[in-house]
Amino acid sequence: VTETALIALIRRLAGRNRLATGRLDLGIGDDCAVWSPAPGRQVLVTTDQLIEGIHYIRRGTTGRQAGARLLGRGLSDIAAMGGDPRLVFLNLALPQADGWTTAFLRGFAAEARRFGVAWAGGDVSTVRGPAVASVTVLGEVPRGQALTRSGARPGDRIFVTGRLGAMPARITPRLGVGRALRNVATACIDLSDGLSTDLHHLCKESGVGAVIRAEAIPCAGTLDQALNRGEDYELLFTGARAPSRIAGVLATEIGVITKGHRVWLDGKPLRPSGWEHSF
Amino acid sequence: VTETALIALIRRLAGRNRLATGRLDLGIGDDCAVWSPAPGRQVLVTTDQLIEGIHYIRRGTTGRQAGARLLGRGLSDIAAMGGDPRLVFLNLALPQADGWTTAFLRGFAAEARRFGVAWAGGDVSTVRGPAVASVTVLGEVPRGQALTRSGARPGDRIFVTGRLGAMPARITPRLGVGRALRNVATACIDLSDGLSTDLHHLCKESGVGAVIRAEAIPCAGTLDQALNRGEDYELLFTGARAPSRIAGVLATEIGVITKGHRVWLDGKPLRPSGWEHSF
Repeated sequence: VTETALIALIRRLAGRNRLATGRLDLGIGDDCAVWSPAPGRQVLVTTDQLIEGIHYIRRGTTGRQAGARLLGRGLSDIAAMGGDPRLVFLNLALPQADGWTTAFLRGFAAEARRFGVAWAGGDVSTVRGPAVASVTVLGEVPRGQALTRSGARPGDRIFVTGRLGAMPARITPRLGVGRALRNVATACIDLSDGLSTDLHHLCKESGVGAVIRAEAIPCAGTLDQALNRGEDYELLFTGARAPSRIAGVLATEIGVITKGHRVWLDGKPLRPSGWEHSF
Repeated sequence: VTETALIALIRRLAGRNRLATGRLDLGIGDDCAVWSPAPGRQVLVTTDQLIEGIHYIRRGTTGRQAGARLLGRGLSDIAAMGGDPRLVFLNLALPQADGWTTAFLRGFAAEARRFGVAWAGGDVSTVRGPAVASVTVLGEVPRGQALTRSGARPGDRIFVTGRLGAMPARITPRLGVGRALRNVATACIDLSDGLSTDLHHLCKESGVGAVIRAEAIPCAGTLDQALNRGEDYELLFTGARAPSRIAGVLATEIGVITKGHRVWLDGKPLRPSGWEHSF
């Protein structure tokens, strides 16, 4: 597969998506994409990376899974803000272009179609080393309704969606939940680094502390996996109350926001186990 | 330099930019950036990559030069559309974090400040191989005034800015020229791959051919360098006429758009020498 053939495949896979709101005025094929977001919306932007040998190994992952996974991570960030994804851009640094690569592109394109996202541009280059894929997702949210990490207040209850620690092969970005939380949650974050780390992120940005109960956490496996494994892509949110199911997804109360800046699990300090990589 | 220290540095360098129009409602520190473009504008999006061992070698380039160069390439795409750059996002896959890397970040941040662009997010990860940096630049353009590659018509004159083939160490994105061309040019592209290749791109997207004259091309070195060397980051545009200086930059007429799809130089077919990598 040559680079030119790869780009021809990308153009074919990208197709012409009609957006639910707003309009893609110009997609692949010019110096920039041109986009008209719908009136009364703010624009959301998130970027993410998927790196061979770090986030996946070729022999352990199909190309389709990896392509879908990269886009899923970006979509999960849009979900955490209560937004609707609209456009996606993919940069690829590749040591070779082969069947795995074309499967990656097909997986990426299928995931974009599934969520009504238009693939609007990108770049393909050679690298003499592991493959690096970089994604940018643009979304929309009704003005003033974006969920942030900074709105949690003492007394707010803490909730998570789904079951934690399972590390699913396929990410299901909680877009429906995010939309439903727009006028309900005081703060929200997606669980990419693990509950222990992401709860610290939310508390830090809100200037608050938290107390959670181990027995309340909906675990897919062990408690340690639920706290520290990461890659859940469920939502962690705060608010006065929440129904037990939101947009068809289980929601579980696990604790309460407090004054101060400490995070406690069953009366002991909860340490963030993960790392920070996004900024 | 640890990854955490790197992210602390990035947060410090990014600062809080006030945009000329529109508003960055939420920058670094949440799941997404939140942006309100100015009313009556369309959003422009472009992405680019800079790869160690392909686009630069560490010993031959300072970190500051490389950081400025990556952003300059993105800004040049915004210029080619007649737009104003507003937000930038940087993804880094790094084998190590050292002095060269912090210089890269400082060069990138200085270039962002220079052009009034807000550094609004990104991602840092480890890679076991060459460094890969990926940039996304978002801009604005007054509705309906974006310059595209597809508007050239037979009889239009062909112009280039500056002198070609010099491969300058520092990119000067032609943002002022792009703005001035909004209601003047029929089509525009930035010269990243070299005149021979980029003229073919413009003709293909417009469904036209072209005839250019070697003696008219403003060469910094040899004719071959001006045609094929690439990395000029000047603008190639078409229209009825143009002054000899635009926004203080030399503009030179080098030929005319024709029917058909062939590109001719002094009566001989001009072959595109470069490659295609953006899509």
